[in-house]
Amino acid sequence: MKLEHIGIAVKNLSSSNELFEKLFGQAAYKFECVESEGVETSFFQLGASKIELLQASDPKSAVSKFIEKRGEGIHHLAFEVEDIEQEIARLKSEGFEFVQEQPKLGADHKIVCFLHPKTTNGVLVELCQEIKE
Amino acid sequence: MKLEHIGIAVKNLSSSNELFEKLFGQAAYKFECVESEGVETSFFQLGASKIELLQASDPKSAVSKFIEKRGEGIHHLAFEVEDIEQEIARLKSEGFEFVQEQPKLGADHKIVCFLHPKTTNGVLVELCQEIKE
Repeated sequence: MKLEHIGIAVKNLSSSNELFEKLFGQAAYKFECVESEGVETSFFQLGASKIELLQASDPKSAVSKFIEKRGEGIHHLAFEVEDIEQEIARLKSEGFEFVQEQPKLGADHKIVCFLHPKTTNGVLVELCQEIKE
Repeated sequence: MKLEHIGIAVKNLSSSNELFEKLFGQAAYKFECVESEGVETSFFQLGASKIELLQASDPKSAVSKFIEKRGEGIHHLAFEVEDIEQEIARLKSEGFEFVQEQPKLGADHKIVCFLHPKTTNGVLVELCQEIKE
């Protein structure tokens, strides 16, 4: 398991891209709309890990609710695994709970599944696996 | 600039070490008490980045106040730079504000300096630089 990216919830992707470009001293290298999650995203590369900015495109999305409740900030941590089905089974056997029953299509050509933060010390954890062609 | 670690605030380091050991499928590789920050910490290696668990050892510490206000969860993101003084000067010229005036001794043999989250989209950002002997 390795850290793949950190998701940061923002209100305005355009102005936050400018802000993080100044902070990191480099521009976002990719933009992607993820309709299944109701978000628009951008990605920055920081060493081996990425920062994903997330702006809600749907007021019912999880990111929109997060910002309403807590304001802008770090939203989730994503860890890449080789076999997401096997990892989900392992974690369920350890007592972890998942937000969704099945992995689904996420950003950046990956299938993803989120653990419930109540079982992970308040941290929203995403498992992700590169889609194999 | 590269992602060095993610800090997660926890109430009980011992039980959280067990929890994250199950989550990551590996044990913490290091424990450290950082008196200057009023915290006890543990570190997990996840690919090229680390996860640092932080338990307050001083009720006046930033981590203690964070947990009182927001509960357990992701506390900060740390980015490693080659020359922390130069990076602080660059970021100040870009309009970023810092929590402290000067870098100070942090965990893991590093000097560190925190940016104020009000200028970084609600994200507490740490700059860190390995101490050169």
